[in-house]
Amino acid sequence: MADHRIKAFYQRQDILGETYEPMQQLRFTELATFMRVPLVSDLADVDIGIVGIPYDGGLTARTGARYGPREVRNQSSLMRAINVATGARPFERARVGDLGDVRFKDLFNLENAIKDIERTFVRIAESDVLPLAVGGDHSVTYPILKGLRSRFDEPVGLLHVDAHTDTWPEFAGSKFHHGAPFRLATDEGLIDPHRTVQIGIRGGQNFADGLDYSRDKGMRVITIEEFDDLGWEAVAQEAKRIVGEGPVYLTFDVDGLDPAYTPGTGTPEAGGITMREAQRLIRAFSGVNLIGGDVVEVSPPLDPSGMTSLNGATILFEILCLLAEHVTLPPID
Amino acid sequence: MADHRIKAFYQRQDILGETYEPMQQLRFTELATFMRVPLVSDLADVDIGIVGIPYDGGLTARTGARYGPREVRNQSSLMRAINVATGARPFERARVGDLGDVRFKDLFNLENAIKDIERTFVRIAESDVLPLAVGGDHSVTYPILKGLRSRFDEPVGLLHVDAHTDTWPEFAGSKFHHGAPFRLATDEGLIDPHRTVQIGIRGGQNFADGLDYSRDKGMRVITIEEFDDLGWEAVAQEAKRIVGEGPVYLTFDVDGLDPAYTPGTGTPEAGGITMREAQRLIRAFSGVNLIGGDVVEVSPPLDPSGMTSLNGATILFEILCLLAEHVTLPPID
Amino acid sequence: MADHRIKAFYQRQDILGETYEPMQQLRFTELATFMRVPLVSDLADVDIGIVGIPYDGGLTARTGARYGPREVRNQSSLMRAINVATGARPFERARVGDLGDVRFKDLFNLENAIKDIERTFVRIAESDVLPLAVGGDHSVTYPILKGLRSRFDEPVGLLHVDAHTDTWPEFAGSKFHHGAPFRLATDEGLIDPHRTVQIGIRGGQNFADGLDYSRDKGMRVITIEEFDDLGWEAVAQEAKRIVGEGPVYLTFDVDGLDPAYTPGTGTPEAGGITMREAQRLIRAFSGVNLIGGDVVEVSPPLDPSGMTSLNGATILFEILCLLAEHVTLPPID
Amino acid sequence: MADHRIKAFYQRQDILGETYEPMQQLRFTELATFMRVPLVSDLADVDIGIVGIPYDGGLTARTGARYGPREVRNQSSLMRAINVATGARPFERARVGDLGDVRFKDLFNLENAIKDIERTFVRIAESDVLPLAVGGDHSVTYPILKGLRSRFDEPVGLLHVDAHTDTWPEFAGSKFHHGAPFRLATDEGLIDPHRTVQIGIRGGQNFADGLDYSRDKGMRVITIEEFDDLGWEAVAQEAKRIVGEGPVYLTFDVDGLDPAYTPGTGTPEAGGITMREAQRLIRAFSGVNLIGGDVVEVSPPLDPSGMTSLNGATILFEILCLLAEHVTLPPID
Amino acid sequence: MADHRIKAFYQRQDILGETYEPMQQLRFTELATFMRVPLVSDLADVDIGIVGIPYDGGLTARTGARYGPREVRNQSSLMRAINVATGARPFERARVGDLGDVRFKDLFNLENAIKDIERTFVRIAESDVLPLAVGGDHSVTYPILKGLRSRFDEPVGLLHVDAHTDTWPEFAGSKFHHGAPFRLATDEGLIDPHRTVQIGIRGGQNFADGLDYSRDKGMRVITIEEFDDLGWEAVAQEAKRIVGEGPVYLTFDVDGLDPAYTPGTGTPEAGGITMREAQRLIRAFSGVNLIGGDVVEVSPPLDPSGMTSLNGATILFEILCLLAEHVTLPPID
Amino acid sequence: MADHRIKAFYQRQDILGETYEPMQQLRFTELATFMRVPLVSDLADVDIGIVGIPYDGGLTARTGARYGPREVRNQSSLMRAINVATGARPFERARVGDLGDVRFKDLFNLENAIKDIERTFVRIAESDVLPLAVGGDHSVTYPILKGLRSRFDEPVGLLHVDAHTDTWPEFAGSKFHHGAPFRLATDEGLIDPHRTVQIGIRGGQNFADGLDYSRDKGMRVITIEEFDDLGWEAVAQEAKRIVGEGPVYLTFDVDGLDPAYTPGTGTPEAGGITMREAQRLIRAFSGVNLIGGDVVEVSPPLDPSGMTSLNGATILFEILCLLAEHVTLPPID
Repeated sequence: MADHRIKAFYQRQDILGETYEPMQQLRFTELATFMRVPLVSDLADVDIGIVGIPYDGGLTARTGARYGPREVRNQSSLMRAINVATGARPFERARVGDLGDVRFKDLFNLENAIKDIERTFVRIAESDVLPLAVGGDHSVTYPILKGLRSRFDEPVGLLHVDAHTDTWPEFAGSKFHHGAPFRLATDEGLIDPHRTVQIGIRGGQNFADGLDYSRDKGMRVITIEEFDDLGWEAVAQEAKRIVGEGPVYLTFDVDGLDPAYTPGTGTPEAGGITMREAQRLIRAFSGVNLIGGDVVEVSPPLDPSGMTSLNGATILFEILCLLAEHVTLPPID
Repeated sequence: MADHRIKAFYQRQDILGETYEPMQQLRFTELATFMRVPLVSDLADVDIGIVGIPYDGGLTARTGARYGPREVRNQSSLMRAINVATGARPFERARVGDLGDVRFKDLFNLENAIKDIERTFVRIAESDVLPLAVGGDHSVTYPILKGLRSRFDEPVGLLHVDAHTDTWPEFAGSKFHHGAPFRLATDEGLIDPHRTVQIGIRGGQNFADGLDYSRDKGMRVITIEEFDDLGWEAVAQEAKRIVGEGPVYLTFDVDGLDPAYTPGTGTPEAGGITMREAQRLIRAFSGVNLIGGDVVEVSPPLDPSGMTSLNGATILFEILCLLAEHVTLPPID
Repeated sequence: MADHRIKAFYQRQDILGETYEPMQQLRFTELATFMRVPLVSDLADVDIGIVGIPYDGGLTARTGARYGPREVRNQSSLMRAINVATGARPFERARVGDLGDVRFKDLFNLENAIKDIERTFVRIAESDVLPLAVGGDHSVTYPILKGLRSRFDEPVGLLHVDAHTDTWPEFAGSKFHHGAPFRLATDEGLIDPHRTVQIGIRGGQNFADGLDYSRDKGMRVITIEEFDDLGWEAVAQEAKRIVGEGPVYLTFDVDGLDPAYTPGTGTPEAGGITMREAQRLIRAFSGVNLIGGDVVEVSPPLDPSGMTSLNGATILFEILCLLAEHVTLPPID
Repeated sequence: MADHRIKAFYQRQDILGETYEPMQQLRFTELATFMRVPLVSDLADVDIGIVGIPYDGGLTARTGARYGPREVRNQSSLMRAINVATGARPFERARVGDLGDVRFKDLFNLENAIKDIERTFVRIAESDVLPLAVGGDHSVTYPILKGLRSRFDEPVGLLHVDAHTDTWPEFAGSKFHHGAPFRLATDEGLIDPHRTVQIGIRGGQNFADGLDYSRDKGMRVITIEEFDDLGWEAVAQEAKRIVGEGPVYLTFDVDGLDPAYTPGTGTPEAGGITMREAQRLIRAFSGVNLIGGDVVEVSPPLDPSGMTSLNGATILFEILCLLAEHVTLPPID
Repeated sequence: MADHRIKAFYQRQDILGETYEPMQQLRFTELATFMRVPLVSDLADVDIGIVGIPYDGGLTARTGARYGPREVRNQSSLMRAINVATGARPFERARVGDLGDVRFKDLFNLENAIKDIERTFVRIAESDVLPLAVGGDHSVTYPILKGLRSRFDEPVGLLHVDAHTDTWPEFAGSKFHHGAPFRLATDEGLIDPHRTVQIGIRGGQNFADGLDYSRDKGMRVITIEEFDDLGWEAVAQEAKRIVGEGPVYLTFDVDGLDPAYTPGTGTPEAGGITMREAQRLIRAFSGVNLIGGDVVEVSPPLDPSGMTSLNGATILFEILCLLAEHVTLPPID
Repeated sequence: MADHRIKAFYQRQDILGETYEPMQQLRFTELATFMRVPLVSDLADVDIGIVGIPYDGGLTARTGARYGPREVRNQSSLMRAINVATGARPFERARVGDLGDVRFKDLFNLENAIKDIERTFVRIAESDVLPLAVGGDHSVTYPILKGLRSRFDEPVGLLHVDAHTDTWPEFAGSKFHHGAPFRLATDEGLIDPHRTVQIGIRGGQNFADGLDYSRDKGMRVITIEEFDDLGWEAVAQEAKRIVGEGPVYLTFDVDGLDPAYTPGTGTPEAGGITMREAQRLIRAFSGVNLIGGDVVEVSPPLDPSGMTSLNGATILFEILCLLAEHVTLPPID
């Protein structure tokens, strides 16, 4: 049974004065916070904080990811309390709050936008809240990692599902775009390339630099072909072996999935991971020392059926289940 | 300048401790409450309360209006503070809150659902909060009027924009469907048919009962053809003459608009009002003693471009501007 | 009250043995015949026959009109028995049947397809059934007129709403395409150009031949600019003056409407007629000696919201109301 | 070769007096009955009857399934006579008729709607016609089973493909919703839980009751994870072992499929069965003593590409092929 | 008849060696250059150059306009050679070339992007080619005007159709966004506010600065309400009076149109200009000393039916017809 | 490194006189030629020529494939230079040009259209350019093969991925439809049925003729079920064994893929190949003596998310990589 503090956390009062849990209401009702958890601004109130990062200034191709948090919130009303496959009940283990969106003071400048994100995650890290972010394009993961850096003595490990290694150099005049976060993070010692695994890599490239960088630095690159040959279970074991015991961040770019599951994304690549594989893969990461995660690159304007947002919300829920394993409720103050 | 209590009402704190106004943020950010106003459950905090009524159990044709509040909230982020055409600044005159959704305890039973709605509006009426509702199908207006009845000594006047008179008798086994609210309201003395005007009426019918009822009871039925001949300005004058000085409720069924503006609605009828006409018509109602209003029949699944929700949100804003005329800030307690 | 033979005509028995009228059922139920009237193959049973012509082999640009009959049937379930604007009750005056689709034996050959259509309309003409056709592209109107020719001593008048005059010469190797029916019909004496009016003409052209042909032959061409200046009412009066007392055929190409009302059509031209104007225009044709009509160029694959099919079905209903004026029930045999 | 009575059954006459088979015509022509078979109201004329159940009053989340029969009919025009994979030719073995839609007298009352459905299936059962139903939401299967009960001495077995067990208790004020049919059917002895297999189960839940009920009563629950591990072939063998020799009903909720195949459904759950697996699974049920079946939860308004309806129609055809195995043509009367 | 140099300009050779005009081919064939004119990189070859500016970094709300040039090119294949309403034949008067897209070296930096645009238009101005640009968001018009400045002794006049005055100050950290081009252009003496008219202004605003700026500087602001009251013809006369005899630039933001005509735009405002009005308005500008123009804010990802791109292409053609009035073919060299 | 002639081939000059490669630009910029390669009309300039065949007159069901070349060109901007999975760099090995579209002189006559296609491919064959075609419906492959025949002494082998064998006899009055190309090609000795393999065959049929023909003539038909049982790798080996050493043509009908990957196609069949399988399958054909290929049946109007065109473009790129293996740069002349 859930701690009564947790129970109280999820409750809201309606205008008739009745107390109820929004998450338990009809799924087309209530405000579209992430999974209809409470909107919170005091970090002391939460164990896990879900943050929207409505930013797509780092995109090099199809725009729209700035609406990702809005629509993932919307579709996440279809999520529920118990993970039937694993038995996980994250909302009984942790106070999960919607922390709102990162606020951008300088929308038009990539470098300043990055600072707005970093500042937010520094604050989260200081509060010992486990962060779960929803992009936005993949450029947002670099400032997230930068913000979290203070909490750890050493570079963190990285579980990275994606069609692309995102370890590319400067492009179109900037090194801070959505194809570069893990090169930046490696160069600045935020992640440990030897404890980094990149899963689902595929698609064409105009240059080989990114792939070469990943491999040269010692990252384990599992292409979709290798994934296909090994199967999700062996991939998961290999990934766990590589990230080891230390703290690990999980970043999930929805373009790692096949476009049949995610038509609404900025850089679709044919021939990707299925949702069935993705869910089992993530669940198999159970036990990893996870310190945060994100789901990025959902682009609602390109998603006429809403399927991409729905799948994004589902991945978010699966990662939340992993994160909740690591919550120990704070002592009563 | 806005009263400082009003200013404070609209402010929120982010997790960095900074104070800001969500309505002034980038339009793809922040939680999708109606126009990004605060979510409120204590009625004492607000002057005007916007309520979602995610109910479409009264529909006789195309379903989907249960998602109306969700998507009107979503698109209403595109609304802003000043009505350029009229100069109205509703958020400087009034504390406008999102009161959340009516909660349904018995989704599958039309009569009980009606009671859930009525109970909510009784409470709002008792609190002297001006209500603005977003449906849901048009069946919701009957329990709204029932809930508001207590506040008034006599039946209220009705400004009603719609393709249909919604004064039909029992259909498919119930008298409480979306084609009947104003017959029920007349029969029960909630509205005064002699102070009722129905604007935009058109389309086919299988029986003449509804139209006959409206006319027999003394309602002023302005068909789209008469509207076309007179123009919005003369129609507005005629409507104001009819509703007179007493309290008036304004109900706007988006199917009163032409389907070119509202493809996403349950009972589209070709050949309706344009948005340009609709906005000018509503603005011309300025001065009417308005006690509440609603926008109904937005059906998001039938609205691939989101245009219906956007137009619905725009109508909502125009009605809000009218309602705000009647707010006198409560004395400091 | 409707003749009992008419009443019986519209009734169907369900599998429980109960008798009922499909048109009066819930609008999402029953088979999607045109307006849910009975499917009939014996012409003796009907006064007005609606025929689908699922042919788009005459298109020169965007395909898809072969699905026009299917989707107009689908959306026409939203039509009802009484025309509220005019009071017309066509289903009480006439036995209106769905005659099914013209059957094509040679899909790939435009000339043979034309013969398949002509043969069908010869048969309808012989049976004294008033025909109402749903295309398909506009090339189908030529064989319709050819089929109906036998019934009349002289060329018929033509009420023609369209963005294009459709009086163009051979194009892309054939003279039988969707831009040519009224040149063919004039050349073969099927229509009288002096009793022909073309309404809504606009858009670009690569050659002037078609427009020149129309004007040279004496057709009255009312461009959208002239329509805009005169208004629907004066246009209707002018059109009635031109077609006069003799038999008249009404052909309505949905691209005469603005693309805001008909995104799903093969040759959209910006800046057209509104549905409100179109409905009033057609109704003002009341009294014309109408001998048949059609609605063409609905292209469902280009119509994500279904609006074009809905407007097409509405136009179909308006023409049906006109046609029903001319039905005198046959004596009981 | 098909019995001449069967051949005659499928023929229709066009208005030219020519006899032809609608199913053999161009696929965008002819009325959209299920697979373009004849519309029949006399049950004596058919061996297998396909019934539309345009009802979605039992839905708890996204509406729209009331348009399921309409669009499955529409897309089923793409089905053909021979199942290439199995060689089955159902239309040569059986007279398959479209029985029209269940007619609802009381749309707004779930309990009465259930009675309307039950009454229809009692009549079908009495006629020895094999029923194949198209929903509508899954609440319709309970009254189907109730209607068929009279034909059998004992509870029937159940082959159930779905993301959900649909064995949940009362929700939102009713026990008759789309998540409950198999709890109701078990409690009333309509199905034998020990001869019931539920395939594809997954997704989140807010309570464990439904799953617990299924397992406690002895149903065989095959989650998607178990399905993934075993493969379709072993699952089919296991399912056949469980349902055994007695009469079996097959119910297919399209949300058992992955949302990539069925975006248009009311309660999508990521990570489901593929169509390739589903077709092979159903075909492997050959030999089971099938007494009827259904396809439910197709929700056209949420299906922009029509893919869900197409896949639903395909599943319908596969089940039809199984049902046709059990038809012995009645002796000539 | 067209000059033979002009004729030759439009011809292309196919791989069989045959010479033909792409613009005269079937409209679904040939490369999607603007109106299928030749792609040109030597400015000496053209009289009028159409340039794509695939930039949407200046957007403050809904993204996607970077795909504007691509889709306007696509839909512009539906344009043709003769403007039926005016008789204009621009391709017989002028060599109209597609100059390709502005190339961005620094996608992520608004100020540098602006320089890339400016540099391009400086070059065009130097070549005496009349420019016609397709955005992209409205921020692109400022660098266009800057680029053209060199050609003129004084600030140019401005015909500006839009929902917004686009004279706002710094927002979200930059003064170079899509709501500011005409404030920047006024401040830098690129346009003459006393010879500037802004047509179609409406919608909400969070601050009054922009409107105040326009009026304070002496621009003529014609709101949609004034437009509605005056009619397109009087507005056109007033506009021509204001811009006078000097050089004038015409900028058309498609959000000046009602969203029924342009659902696919970044900042839709309900209640705008119709396409019929817009076309007549632009044509009435005939005779103005036009030196260039643009169509901006087409956002294809938000435009499921393609209607916005089609209307954008139509506006482009209308402006092209005006520009072609000013071409005098250069003497044979 | 690429030969300098190849490098020069891909370069273009912008209006500023700067030289650059369009393929390396931002992916939403530049003209939408296939993969943004140069548009070429002199065959001497290219090694591999990609030709659009915007023809869908051979379709028997859902139209729209005439827009296939346009949208495959559009989506192919997302392709890049290096095939990450195989390391292939086709644009460094060969001059790949966009040859434009086949020009149709007689759109309305299937037989003449076929001649237009044949004539084009005769010319390509004579020039020793390797052809890669993009349909259009599958009827176009017959005249392609006919055009290429002259280059070879004997019938070529065929790698054919499809849901259908396309070896059907006359249908709807013509033997030249999209279901017949390989019957025609066999009968005329264009392909060798014993060196033909058909992969992915499935779906219903109204007659068995086509399948019987394929098998009777000795083609190797691999149904989707056999494909599923064997896996892509064994299928590829089997296919290579069958086509042997001689010249082979590869034809890829996108309906061979599951509709989840290709909703936008004319004859979708549930339960097909995944993109992951398809890509690996094609890559495994490496080493086959490929003389040309095509991708057909992309139907953009039925493809709301653009996924079908994207997957079609991806298949095109994979085939291009195979073709480029066979290019030996011509000696410098």
